[in-house]
Amino acid sequence: MTRGEMRYEGKAKRVYATDVDGEYIVEYKDDATAFNGVKKAQIMGKGEINNAITAHLYPLLEQAGIPTHFLAKLSDREQRVRAVTIVPVEVIVRNVAAGSFSKRLGIEEGTPLSRPVVEYCFKSDALGDPLINTDTAVALGWASEADLTRIRELALNVRDFLVPYFEARGVKLIDFKLEFGKLASGEIVLADEISPDTCRFWDAETNEKLDKDRFRRDLGGVEDAYAEMLARVTQTV
Amino acid sequence: MTRGEMRYEGKAKRVYATDVDGEYIVEYKDDATAFNGVKKAQIMGKGEINNAITAHLYPLLEQAGIPTHFLAKLSDREQRVRAVTIVPVEVIVRNVAAGSFSKRLGIEEGTPLSRPVVEYCFKSDALGDPLINTDTAVALGWASEADLTRIRELALNVRDFLVPYFEARGVKLIDFKLEFGKLASGEIVLADEISPDTCRFWDAETNEKLDKDRFRRDLGGVEDAYAEMLARVTQTV
Ligand SMILES: Nc1ncnc2c1ncn2[C@@H]1O[C@H](COP(=O)(O)OP(=O)(O)O)[C@@H](O)[C@H]1O
Ligand SMILES: Nc1ncnc2c1ncn2[C@@H]1O[C@H](COP(=O)(O)OP(=O)(O)O)[C@@H](O)[C@H]1O
Ligand SMILES: [Mg+2]
Ligand SMILES: [Mg+2]
Repeated sequence: MTRGEMRYEGKAKRVYATDVDGEYIVEYKDDATAFNGVKKAQIMGKGEINNAITAHLYPLLEQAGIPTHFLAKLSDREQRVRAVTIVPVEVIVRNVAAGSFSKRLGIEEGTPLSRPVVEYCFKSDALGDPLINTDTAVALGWASEADLTRIRELALNVRDFLVPYFEARGVKLIDFKLEFGKLASGEIVLADEISPDTCRFWDAETNEKLDKDRFRRDLGGVEDAYAEMLARVTQTV
Repeated sequence: MTRGEMRYEGKAKRVYATDVDGEYIVEYKDDATAFNGVKKAQIMGKGEINNAITAHLYPLLEQAGIPTHFLAKLSDREQRVRAVTIVPVEVIVRNVAAGSFSKRLGIEEGTPLSRPVVEYCFKSDALGDPLINTDTAVALGWASEADLTRIRELALNVRDFLVPYFEARGVKLIDFKLEFGKLASGEIVLADEISPDTCRFWDAETNEKLDKDRFRRDLGGVEDAYAEMLARVTQTV
């Protein structure tokens, strides 16, 4: 498989065409951004770690019955994926109050939620990924009702797999962001990545943050936290 | 019926106990606020007009099968209502993009929505009535899943009644905000008010705003717009 022209450069990854129809190569960068691109830096080794974590988890999710875009890890920073049309609705699943949710609703970070909360945001850097709901996504043509029902089901299935997976490795999964895509067939699959960039991970014993909040909040030890999460994710229990 | 002690003073109304168990008197004030209380003024005659509009519409909604808190108009500014426990979730129904929705999503005001959008906000002046969704309301104990299902059904029924009602009177109903309450029996009823304070009304011919946006946006002619809406609402067609 040969890497073709770059199709898209995002904040954390580059997407390339390939010589295989319907397949892309995703390259993971060390670039980190926060607050909708206002804060920018490099996190050394992040690209390799996020590629490795995603490449480890997606096959496990597939085994758990969740269709994903993932095909294979190609190199330290590259993976082969199925080309999808990304649904422009980011899906946030919350187990514990944190981040924008805590701030918006005045709920202390770390407050457990009595049930998972699924939030939807319109994927738009220009608008700052505003919170929406499924009515809005359907009314504005971003997704169909049926697609959103499937996306919610898959997002909750991802949660049901990941929560005990991380718990067994000493990590509380506070919340996470998913992106879904549509194959040419119309099938919805989990796309993008699952990594410390897109999840909140807290150490189960100490509540130490092991995710991008270390970068967002200038807590230091960013690289160490990412490396620690790779070690935990790949740990056999 | 005698008016007892004041139970609650809000931004636009006062709620009083009465000598009848389970009944309140609501008094409509001329006070107007916008932007979460930052902008304040009096709109002369607003209390009488909003009382009259609500007192006209709620019995019609009851006839259309929507249970409400409304019992009777008592005076120019007062109405008798059933005492409810207000569900702290404001319900916004949108037919056409406007206001915060347009701003948040970059959709031009006046763009028709291909289907009604129901939004939910946490009723909290301190937090600025933040947007939430039904998962959040349930997880944080603000309403049960069953109550929210009923509230959505009633909100859409209110829409289905009001849209043709206003259309017949030369008014486009752009969006509106509802509050629901719970009776001691557990039944959900429509509470609060329906008025130019809580709806966006545009003249069907000219798109002239006939609602509180005239006050929010300093468009002038505020009192005239409210008076015009009372005339339209009570017009026989
Ligand atoms: N399988 C896929 N097919 C097509 N696009 C994808 C796929 N997986 C992820 N993407 C998109 O590629 C981009 C990944 O780059 P990223 O740096 O994360 O972007 P962003 O700045 O939008 O977060 C995102 O826009 C994501 O939606
Ligand atoms: N039937 C009712 N029983 C109890 N409270 C009610 C009833 N109808 C409306 N309310 C509440 O009374 C208050 C009305 O006053 P208002 O000035 O509109 O308040 P706000 O400043 O909260 O908008 C609101 O808090 C509303 O929720
Ligand atoms: Mg991304
Ligand atoms: Mg009010």
